[in-house]
Amino acid sequence: SGLVHVKNPHLESMEEDVLYHLDLGTKTHNLPAMFGDIKFVCVGGSPRRMRAFAQFMHKELGLAGDGEDLADICAGTDRYAMYRAGPVLSISHGMGIPSISIMLHELIKLLHHAKCRDVTIIRIGTSGGLGIEAGSVVITDTAVDSSFKPRFEQVVLDDVVVRSTELDRDLVEELLACSKKIPDFPTLIGHTMCTSDFYEGQGRLDGALCSFSSEKKSEYLKRAYDAGVRNIEMESTAFAALCRLCGLKGESSRGRFA
Amino acid sequence: SGLVHVKNPHLESMEEDVLYHLDLGTKTHNLPAMFGDIKFVCVGGSPRRMRAFAQFMHKELGLAGDGEDLADICAGTDRYAMYRAGPVLSISHGMGIPSISIMLHELIKLLHHAKCRDVTIIRIGTSGGLGIEAGSVVITDTAVDSSFKPRFEQVVLDDVVVRSTELDRDLVEELLACSKKIPDFPTLIGHTMCTSDFYEGQGRLDGALCSFSSEKKSEYLKRAYDAGVRNIEMESTAFAALCRLCGLKGESSRGRFA
Repeated sequence: SGLVHVKNPHLESMEEDVLYHLDLGTKTHNLPAMFGDIKFVCVGGSPRRMRAFAQFMHKELGLAGDGEDLADICAGTDRYAMYRAGPVLSISHGMGIPSISIMLHELIKLLHHAKCRDVTIIRIGTSGGLGIEAGSVVITDTAVDSSFKPRFEQVVLDDVVVRSTELDRDLVEELLACSKKIPDFPTLIGHTMCTSDFYEGQGRLDGALCSFSSEKKSEYLKRAYDAGVRNIEMESTAFAALCRLCGLKGESSRGRFA
Repeated sequence: SGLVHVKNPHLESMEEDVLYHLDLGTKTHNLPAMFGDIKFVCVGGSPRRMRAFAQFMHKELGLAGDGEDLADICAGTDRYAMYRAGPVLSISHGMGIPSISIMLHELIKLLHHAKCRDVTIIRIGTSGGLGIEAGSVVITDTAVDSSFKPRFEQVVLDDVVVRSTELDRDLVEELLACSKKIPDFPTLIGHTMCTSDFYEGQGRLDGALCSFSSEKKSEYLKRAYDAGVRNIEMESTAFAALCRLCGLKGESSRGRFA
């Protein structure tokens, strides 16, 4: 049917669903009217960047006005920022799995309540590249954890549930085909490694704590490269697992800064 | 000596230390002049709330001016916001362990470079209460994980290192004594449980995914209460572990919203 699934039998019997961290709700907002025609959702860490992205989309789509005064749909909260440009929603998610996960739970419910169909979701953002040219874009085929395994371990109460982190193969190919039409746009397909820590978890030597040598760092990153990892960030496994479970065609592609 | 420790032998040989996510650095800013006299650091999730807290401190301390125009010291980035009021620094950290952890690594290096002494750090914020009166403040004696254990599992490259999450006992007692001087300020000491997920991890029945019954939820929360947990949030174990390792006198106390 192309609808977004929620997998929660309790939701049906709730009189009102408050999307706390988006400052939206089923009784306070007409979600089908506000969002029913959304076809693409782009998410990224920084609120300023997601605003700039919405303005860029506004211009690319040739919408009326210069797009400079796009309103933050979640202005009532400072947890996340949300902008729309035609059928494209642009939302910030902060840094790390817990932060993106709160946003995705509420976004998925929003798209469900709004009765959206055939929604594609793409995470865009910076990441640390591994053995690739600076400025390259990595289109993620599979998100992997810090042991290079394609899995996301979700703690449910005090049980651990393991979820798959594969992304939509057709969308990967489609995005690669798009990139080929743009000159000087180095793009490749690869695995993206997701860590819970920026310093100790990603082999950085410049955190407040560092217990490993430069050699140990290089050895770890080489093993990651050999396992197919081409970039490192902090949200992809949770993103892939949640989108997959809820019927969102998901993809995670990123510019590289290092 | 009361100095803040970094535990990273690589830092000494670095010519410049860029605190990326704070938009500060050792070559671009005179950190001792800007921060050398800081004695208290208060951290919380929301940037707006940490600004309001700095304004409140400004007034409480009787500093010149009305404090309405406090500048965001990290204005060049939208990752975190930072304000100061006299010897008090007020910083936002976003939501979840990865987000607070990036901020704390850079904050600890900042306090180290600035040669600050005898710094006390307090996390303040909302949390979900467990079997306590609405509006109570919980002063955390120990942060525990979702299995009620006083530990933080940090992934370092692909190893797991277990760290202690006890907080400063003297500071706990000092804060409790302060609370007793304020009328109608229900305050208690208890364990704080830290989860990596707001919905499935905290027993909420209103996420996009929910695979447990209302009974299973209640049974889990009862077990948490019996283990001494009085409130639930998403940052305390990483906060306690990092502050402890780096010689910061740390405490986590929170208002309760549920």
